[in-house]
Amino acid sequence: LKALVIDKGKIAFIEKPVPQIAANEALVKVLVAGICNTDLEIERGYMGFSGTPGHEFVGVVEKCSQAGLIGQRIVGEINHGCGNCDRCKKDLSRHCPNRSVLGIVNKDGAFAEYLSLPIKNLHIVNKSISDEQSVFTEPLAAAFEIPEQVHIKPGMDVLVFGDGKLAQLIARVLKLNSAKVVVIGKHETKLKLLERFSIETKLLSEFKPRQSPITIEATGSIEGFELAVKCTQPRGTLVLKSTVADSEKFNLSPLVIDEIAVIGSRCGPFSPALGALEKGSVIVEDLISKTFRFEDAIAAFDYAKKPGVLKVLLDMR
Amino acid sequence: LKALVIDKGKIAFIEKPVPQIAANEALVKVLVAGICNTDLEIERGYMGFSGTPGHEFVGVVEKCSQAGLIGQRIVGEINHGCGNCDRCKKDLSRHCPNRSVLGIVNKDGAFAEYLSLPIKNLHIVNKSISDEQSVFTEPLAAAFEIPEQVHIKPGMDVLVFGDGKLAQLIARVLKLNSAKVVVIGKHETKLKLLERFSIETKLLSEFKPRQSPITIEATGSIEGFELAVKCTQPRGTLVLKSTVADSEKFNLSPLVIDEIAVIGSRCGPFSPALGALEKGSVIVEDLISKTFRFEDAIAAFDYAKKPGVLKVLLDMR
Repeated sequence: LKALVIDKGKIAFIEKPVPQIAANEALVKVLVAGICNTDLEIERGYMGFSGTPGHEFVGVVEKCSQAGLIGQRIVGEINHGCGNCDRCKKDLSRHCPNRSVLGIVNKDGAFAEYLSLPIKNLHIVNKSISDEQSVFTEPLAAAFEIPEQVHIKPGMDVLVFGDGKLAQLIARVLKLNSAKVVVIGKHETKLKLLERFSIETKLLSEFKPRQSPITIEATGSIEGFELAVKCTQPRGTLVLKSTVADSEKFNLSPLVIDEIAVIGSRCGPFSPALGALEKGSVIVEDLISKTFRFEDAIAAFDYAKKPGVLKVLLDMR
Repeated sequence: LKALVIDKGKIAFIEKPVPQIAANEALVKVLVAGICNTDLEIERGYMGFSGTPGHEFVGVVEKCSQAGLIGQRIVGEINHGCGNCDRCKKDLSRHCPNRSVLGIVNKDGAFAEYLSLPIKNLHIVNKSISDEQSVFTEPLAAAFEIPEQVHIKPGMDVLVFGDGKLAQLIARVLKLNSAKVVVIGKHETKLKLLERFSIETKLLSEFKPRQSPITIEATGSIEGFELAVKCTQPRGTLVLKSTVADSEKFNLSPLVIDEIAVIGSRCGPFSPALGALEKGSVIVEDLISKTFRFEDAIAAFDYAKKPGVLKVLLDMR
């Protein structure tokens, strides 16, 4: 099969054998995959991963021990715990210290014609959801992790810093909780996408810092984090959503003085994400900047790095 | 009156008039005051404060509009809100944006023969508590802020990083909540003080990092913070208790990957602190390294900076 590989910051195509599946696994033919900022960070060396990246995908089960699954269109959770440790037993396998993570840690990912995943990671996708929409399940689940961790009350003032792919999904999800969401970003065209959902936006250059009980950092930059700290009211909560590969210099004492809670937030629950796609309560299609044929994946990576670009898809159909 | 002043990193004695008190204030003759790490940070330029430092004290009310208070021995809360803003109205005057803070922000502090404070900040001290014990009310209240913010369950594994004054009080307070407290520090003599309370201790050099649901950073160093992050289990809570004046370089992504909550924690409630001193449920006297006459306060500041030294008191009696 044809697969993309990243090794020491170099990205290339290789031919490799179709993966052998274990008894608990399914062989999945990938239909469409999405490029995430984490993939771009991985290319820069984040997580020290070498192998096939890609963790946002929709595919069809070709082989597995559960006959009913064969031929089904599925999306897949990306963390796979050992199943034996305390965390796995407490239903926290997303935090298993020995976990593999599809396309990120110890497991080849979705930028290939085939991938393998444990059967229990798979979710069947309803026919009403298109392939393109399905690819957003994983990042949309990450957005749904926020109301899972933090109590977002109706009418609550929430500032979202960032206007990229993840920030867009977060704003749309929090709007479902009837929060008063304001998105602060640098790109007029990206902010404009939020208008149809009646989400208030502000260009960073025009934003006058003010304090809010909940702020979300989704810019992936240290300046974004510092502004979010400044805009979190005393005893408020700052949800830290983006991972940045670099160490940066800053001062922690504002967190102590204002007794701010900084809450790290990563992967989230697939069910509400699929539910929102099915009901159409969260729109995602407008976030697709361009779809590339899989054989043009390297050009797609370059395109995804351009300013102003949102989701880039790879089509393997 | 004789008062210590800090101005641009220089510490000196001056003579100044006894403070005029407003209708809502009391004039307090200071009996004993304590030197806190924040005072040493202020001397280094933290908060840009110039004036008389000192916020840990016990004194006697000499003048105020409430006759019953005159002659009473009191301790005082250090934050004074404007009384009119949203935060003050929500009983959050400790976080009023226009607050003064005794000896730290816009208000002369306790390293002087007299100070003034709003009457509502005062707490009468029970006769069974000595002057020396009373001085610990403020830092002990800061330790009681932790169980106020975080649910410490009985038997819970709590790692406290640091063995200084504040770390000592925190360990003793959390032990009251039946937590399984382990204190990790650099100083054998300081750790030894915790033995009588059956609090487990570990020298940093012998500590093998392991993960705990709750960690407390009370070292005031970036190395302490990084070790605390490493030792906080996924979805666990790191309480950030110490303020550090400097900006430091570090990487935030472990907070996201492990979905850690970092909770800043500052001043706390006086009532449980006074209650613990009265009942003797928290012992503090063993934390006094040395008591200086007030006129030797400059030598006392130098002494307080020495490694191995815990609380240094100034005696104005």
